[in-house]
Amino acid sequence: MSPKAEIEIVRSVADLRARVRAWKSAGLTVGMVPTMGALHEGHLSLVRLAKTRADRVLASVFVNPTQFGPNEDFDAYPRDEGRDAELLAGAGCDLMFAPTVAEMYPPGASTTVTVAGVSEPLDGQARPGHFAGVATVVSKLLNQGQPDVAVFGEKDYQQLQVIKRLVADLDLPVEVLGAPTARAEDGLALSSRNAYLSDAERAQAPALGRALKAAAAALKGGARVDAVEAEALAAIQAAGFSSIDYFEVRGASDLSRLGPGPIVGEARILTAARLGKTRLIDNMGV
Amino acid sequence: MSPKAEIEIVRSVADLRARVRAWKSAGLTVGMVPTMGALHEGHLSLVRLAKTRADRVLASVFVNPTQFGPNEDFDAYPRDEGRDAELLAGAGCDLMFAPTVAEMYPPGASTTVTVAGVSEPLDGQARPGHFAGVATVVSKLLNQGQPDVAVFGEKDYQQLQVIKRLVADLDLPVEVLGAPTARAEDGLALSSRNAYLSDAERAQAPALGRALKAAAAALKGGARVDAVEAEALAAIQAAGFSSIDYFEVRGASDLSRLGPGPIVGEARILTAARLGKTRLIDNMGV
Repeated sequence: MSPKAEIEIVRSVADLRARVRAWKSAGLTVGMVPTMGALHEGHLSLVRLAKTRADRVLASVFVNPTQFGPNEDFDAYPRDEGRDAELLAGAGCDLMFAPTVAEMYPPGASTTVTVAGVSEPLDGQARPGHFAGVATVVSKLLNQGQPDVAVFGEKDYQQLQVIKRLVADLDLPVEVLGAPTARAEDGLALSSRNAYLSDAERAQAPALGRALKAAAAALKGGARVDAVEAEALAAIQAAGFSSIDYFEVRGASDLSRLGPGPIVGEARILTAARLGKTRLIDNMGV
Repeated sequence: MSPKAEIEIVRSVADLRARVRAWKSAGLTVGMVPTMGALHEGHLSLVRLAKTRADRVLASVFVNPTQFGPNEDFDAYPRDEGRDAELLAGAGCDLMFAPTVAEMYPPGASTTVTVAGVSEPLDGQARPGHFAGVATVVSKLLNQGQPDVAVFGEKDYQQLQVIKRLVADLDLPVEVLGAPTARAEDGLALSSRNAYLSDAERAQAPALGRALKAAAAALKGGARVDAVEAEALAAIQAAGFSSIDYFEVRGASDLSRLGPGPIVGEARILTAARLGKTRLIDNMGV
């Protein structure tokens, strides 16, 4: 029996920087995977992608309070640091950065990074303040870790576009990579929030991915955006989702509204909907 | 006769980074002095301070449109790149970064850095949007140049506090140094905007510095903040200033309002007033 893989955990920015400085002094490149923990196969695929692009990989585990709205699930969000550490070690991650809220936001902290445009529709409407919280914490994490490359999942597609935008706009010296969404065998996008689903809801949930797949195929075949969106909304509702925040076909990088006719150029279909109290999001490229 | 000193000028972020990378690869530390050009002895004192703290010093010269209001002096702001380059070379600066507006803000740029609290009173009231423009461009410049230390003048004291705040909050890996205000013999704080003053206004202008000096002495002697402020306002008005945006005694680092009684702890007196169409600012520590 081989011994369990272990990973070093640092909790302060100073310790994180000391480790990264040592790597860089040795001429090693650094990849970073920012996460909110509650890790699953999707996160681990990001670590593995980072490992193909950098000599050392660090993952941050931080449930960032500023990206949750007052009525959202910050307190309930799943946390299991021991398991996260084991999974990261098993995936070959070299360092885990797990700061406290006080380390990330000391008294007096008062700076916010906001991204206009790409952060405004979709989850920007459904979750006011969410992307300012994301943009600010990701700016901090990237400046703290100073990686050469940072990997984020396409599962949070709008977030990925917001991050690409802020990295370009603030001239952060890091390359941002998106990684494809990991899915369960029945097509459900892996998400830490899937843990909230009852068995019955878990059985209904793949309807979201199926609707995206059908919509992508229809759009590829030349169908009109308005017709595709209407059909998808009906299918998701019929599958038992209690409310649908959006199901929209948009430009792949600026998330501008496409349609109502057939699409021209690269598009992304994005959706968010609730099963009971659980809000699920998913998206697919066309 | 010794040959005129020369300085290399780069205009793209890529060229700037290549130069800085070469310095860092050689084990040299880097100091940066962000300016809007129209350089005077005050700026050169920042360069000289930077030279005492870093092996190589770069200065940026960029009149940043986003920190000017619609009715402010962006178009009229003095520009003389040839003279700026000569002065920087003479002060021993190693590199001048003079990007275009298009290089700094390419199409699609949509990210803003805002600092709550310290940026809200004083010039935050008098110049809406000004400090968001400053915070955003300084974030960009520091990420572009990646200096070990950056030097800013205390002449723009509130700006210095905003920058210290954002560097701490966004975890930018740079040390921010404030440098004392350079003054003419008659006490007028050196400023690129002094070039706007007529001869008569130039003769009236030192009243601002005199009022600050008198106020600092009175506060040190235990005078009440409200009395000191009232006396200074009267003195500045009597000296011919046409409008006074503020003359206020505030906490030295958080710029919280002090008074109305005598001060306790470290304070800063800040003022902004107009002589004709020229807006002058100045400040002094107590």
